[in-house]
Amino acid sequence: MKHRPIKASILTHNLSHNLSRVKNMTNSAPTWAVVKANAYGHGLEPALKAFRESEGIALLDLEHAAFARDLGWVGRILLLEGVFAEADYDDAVNISCEIVIHHEQQITWLIQWLGKQGPQKAAELLAKCPIWLKLNSGMNRLGFKSAQYGVSYEILKQIGCTVHHLTHFANADDPQIFPSVQDQWGIFSKATLYVDGLKSAANSAAIIGYSFTHADMTRPGIMLYGASPSGNYQDIADLDLKAGMNLRSEIIALQELQTGDTVGYGSQYVAPKNTKIAVIACGYADGYPRSAPNGTPVWVGKAENILDGQIAPIVGRVSMDMMMIDVSNISHAHIGSPVELWGELNPIDDVALPAKTVGYELMCGLTNRVKQEIL
Amino acid sequence: MKHRPIKASILTHNLSHNLSRVKNMTNSAPTWAVVKANAYGHGLEPALKAFRESEGIALLDLEHAAFARDLGWVGRILLLEGVFAEADYDDAVNISCEIVIHHEQQITWLIQWLGKQGPQKAAELLAKCPIWLKLNSGMNRLGFKSAQYGVSYEILKQIGCTVHHLTHFANADDPQIFPSVQDQWGIFSKATLYVDGLKSAANSAAIIGYSFTHADMTRPGIMLYGASPSGNYQDIADLDLKAGMNLRSEIIALQELQTGDTVGYGSQYVAPKNTKIAVIACGYADGYPRSAPNGTPVWVGKAENILDGQIAPIVGRVSMDMMMIDVSNISHAHIGSPVELWGELNPIDDVALPAKTVGYELMCGLTNRVKQEIL
Repeated sequence: MKHRPIKASILTHNLSHNLSRVKNMTNSAPTWAVVKANAYGHGLEPALKAFRESEGIALLDLEHAAFARDLGWVGRILLLEGVFAEADYDDAVNISCEIVIHHEQQITWLIQWLGKQGPQKAAELLAKCPIWLKLNSGMNRLGFKSAQYGVSYEILKQIGCTVHHLTHFANADDPQIFPSVQDQWGIFSKATLYVDGLKSAANSAAIIGYSFTHADMTRPGIMLYGASPSGNYQDIADLDLKAGMNLRSEIIALQELQTGDTVGYGSQYVAPKNTKIAVIACGYADGYPRSAPNGTPVWVGKAENILDGQIAPIVGRVSMDMMMIDVSNISHAHIGSPVELWGELNPIDDVALPAKTVGYELMCGLTNRVKQEIL
Repeated sequence: MKHRPIKASILTHNLSHNLSRVKNMTNSAPTWAVVKANAYGHGLEPALKAFRESEGIALLDLEHAAFARDLGWVGRILLLEGVFAEADYDDAVNISCEIVIHHEQQITWLIQWLGKQGPQKAAELLAKCPIWLKLNSGMNRLGFKSAQYGVSYEILKQIGCTVHHLTHFANADDPQIFPSVQDQWGIFSKATLYVDGLKSAANSAAIIGYSFTHADMTRPGIMLYGASPSGNYQDIADLDLKAGMNLRSEIIALQELQTGDTVGYGSQYVAPKNTKIAVIACGYADGYPRSAPNGTPVWVGKAENILDGQIAPIVGRVSMDMMMIDVSNISHAHIGSPVELWGELNPIDDVALPAKTVGYELMCGLTNRVKQEIL
């Protein structure tokens, strides 16, 4: 049975390579390899294999932390949003997770939880689960503002926690926007000036652009997967970062258009001349963005060798299961020709940009009808 | 272990209700209930249960057709894009599928396949697998143009196939755009004037707006799932169609902003006054559109009863795992407050519209980290 011919190949060796590039850029500072969102769509299993040189992984869900342990991950695990309920501290101990605390509710839960445990279990949490207290330095999403940060720290120390410190940058990918990395770093430095503990602040964009933020542990995410935090592919190509995923499919039909013929829903493309178009088995229900306009690049290879190919532009609106491209200039295009939607031949950033989004959304948005193969 | 609190509840009774509304609108014309794309994100299993009164289901992949049979589906199954390889005709017979043919390559594969079979297997395919020949009447995606349609029909008849006819409308949701439903219906009627077989043309928009297209079998898709083909929720509310899915989560943090504070990546929201915001456990890696701008509606309920609630607007850019809303006017908002991203209280069309997309893309785009519950 031939599956509908769309497939995502996960390039484990490129993921590993990207981690080593991060290490190289940061004087080998310890890393939390960010593997939330199913490792940005790449799958937790290949990501753990690829990132085995990372000191830690960072994710959201205790269930995924437990899965990582089941897969044999013995390194550190950080719960980036902490717990979602008091009882989660039970599991966090059992799984040996380090835990973000970003809100006073989580401190209350922790104190209540500790009060209900025998001394051994309580001691176990305090020993095995360092707390990473989160400062809201201007992102205004998660974390304590500076005025509340000190008292939160003191409470956690009083109950016996090991406390480390983290914050998150809002605009590390664009120096023109307030608050800047310098602004936020200044606030973070001030709030953590007289306290013990490790510090972590740098996401991918800050790893690349602001070495003064590398601190005690970096948190690379998007750069591990070979897309640019700024959306500009050249930024990461210059750093020798490589695609983590090839999303490929095939041509399943061809049409010969006459001048003036229109294509697809809403007839958003009008052929300016006689045009040969190809239909590709990929649509928005696979996770390809419906917002990709006419002209968005698709790589079309020769059947015997996809590396020998060229770019063709999308024509007409991307539909649920299909998209159309202009192959007037590609004489070898035929039913079964391999195409790359994004990957090593067609950078994901070059697709995200015209679609008015970022590579992050594309890779995370792959749906489960797309088969994965791990290379 | 409390899972990150986002969940999609599939409203099987609403899906069934919507099918009965379709039957009511079409004088009980037989239906291909379209369940491709994992039943538009709702899951094949609940969809088959909900659509058991439908004569047939329509989907893309033989693997999913086989799964439907495994689940006990004994009705008709249509492969909407036909086969992707010659050998697929084997499985199509075994699974008893009706098969679209949209391209001459598929006819060639069929003739080659028949030539390789013993007479019994060949006869079995001809008996069990009616062909639905697809006319390209102006969509310019899949299908034969009129000039090739007749000869394709003749070839298929000569080899002994039962042949039916279908086409697909490009602009049934917008009468202002060429080609119109009338244009395409005229071309379809002319191409099928002197041939035997059933006819099918009407998608959801044509079921609603163009009763002359209902013909022998309709193909309802989006309307079964309670979203509007035009994107205008009122269109389907007026028809008493109901949401097929509630996507709900919870507030996981609160922040008090001062005038001038900015929110989220790119600082795209600036607080015009002191503002209370809430952080919700839902982001684009769940399938919520990153393109949803400031003002996109989110329903915030009281913890004891989500029905008692009100709309709050998104502030700041939707991020991978979270979004922020302005809850200055919602005194009951607290950690754990239930929210509805889309569903019965907050129509999916009202989210899709500001995000510059359609309900189709949102429901199909849910990722597998979102837990499903079938109601």
